[in-house]
Amino acid sequence: MKLYDYKQAPNPRRVRMFMAEKGIEVETVQIDLMQGEQFSENFRKINPLCEVPLLQLDDGRCISQVNAICLYLEGIYPDKPLFGRNPLERALVESHNHQIQLNGILAVAEAFRNSSPKFKNRAITSPHNYAQIPELAERGLVQLDNLFADLEAHFANSQYMVGDYFSVADITAFVTIKFAKWVEKTIPENCANLQRWCDQISDRPSAKA
Amino acid sequence: MKLYDYKQAPNPRRVRMFMAEKGIEVETVQIDLMQGEQFSENFRKINPLCEVPLLQLDDGRCISQVNAICLYLEGIYPDKPLFGRNPLERALVESHNHQIQLNGILAVAEAFRNSSPKFKNRAITSPHNYAQIPELAERGLVQLDNLFADLEAHFANSQYMVGDYFSVADITAFVTIKFAKWVEKTIPENCANLQRWCDQISDRPSAKA
Repeated sequence: MKLYDYKQAPNPRRVRMFMAEKGIEVETVQIDLMQGEQFSENFRKINPLCEVPLLQLDDGRCISQVNAICLYLEGIYPDKPLFGRNPLERALVESHNHQIQLNGILAVAEAFRNSSPKFKNRAITSPHNYAQIPELAERGLVQLDNLFADLEAHFANSQYMVGDYFSVADITAFVTIKFAKWVEKTIPENCANLQRWCDQISDRPSAKA
Repeated sequence: MKLYDYKQAPNPRRVRMFMAEKGIEVETVQIDLMQGEQFSENFRKINPLCEVPLLQLDDGRCISQVNAICLYLEGIYPDKPLFGRNPLERALVESHNHQIQLNGILAVAEAFRNSSPKFKNRAITSPHNYAQIPELAERGLVQLDNLFADLEAHFANSQYMVGDYFSVADITAFVTIKFAKWVEKTIPENCANLQRWCDQISDRPSAKA
């Protein structure tokens, strides 16, 4: 297996953290997104979506999208499950993970891609071009304020995203918080519970992945 | 179990189609989204996200978000799996399903919610208010044109979203196509393969759910 990766980007980092948690090591290939390598003819052939992360299996077949890659790895390395240990837990992990993707990762991406001059006409991660919408960048920042407040309330009563069970939803939330620095958003001072959770995840060896 | 539902809305329909495919029957409670019933004190108590679908278990615990609900049902009713039958298939289903949610369901929602006078300050499905952004409505329509073209290319070489295996990704894509009518987008005449796939899904009894 080979992971097409870009060290600086948040979505590949989610896969790397997931692998670190499970002790999985694979060859990685860096695709320099800032230099537009994802649009090269060679890379487009293996991923028409023109994005990383991408997992290439030994037989050449490819899996794109963070959760799909992690789900595959969970299937072939079932020890230390991170997607839930029973149907209800799996559902709660999926629910929180999806929420954080929509209101977290996507909000930061919208704030960043709709304001950075480097992303002119590249407002969406997609093989298609889309113009920037400045109001969307502003809205992303407001969504992050709301997310911080919602997470603060959540962690007042919960150790992790899903009770006392560390899962992919925590990885997504943690990477979101780190990614938010790209748009100069950090955990507000009045969010002690969110900060406690974040410090706890930072202490895990996988946080360095 | 009890499904909080709204007959007209696309996301509850995805759950109903999923249940129909698996032969699952549960009590449903209609929450009239057009009348704002999702913001009532009573409903907010069981779903702080103020949205349907919501699945309430017999012990009172609740699962929100379409995929989370379907994943739970897949776990307790494993016959006729719709999330994939092995790790690779599960990954491919997740990958396609996620893509269609982002570029399909979300694109129609953005086109609709950012243009309809009824959704002033309700541009995002969320307990928080967000102002409409007219450019986002326009962008949603362009995304749908690109989605139709991408799906046409996909179905030229594939019976379903994932090879010859009918899955939740097909349900999501089918409901997206139907939802697109809300913003007056229908399958273009030059998309014969997409139309063939859509007719095939329309013929399934679950399409009436």
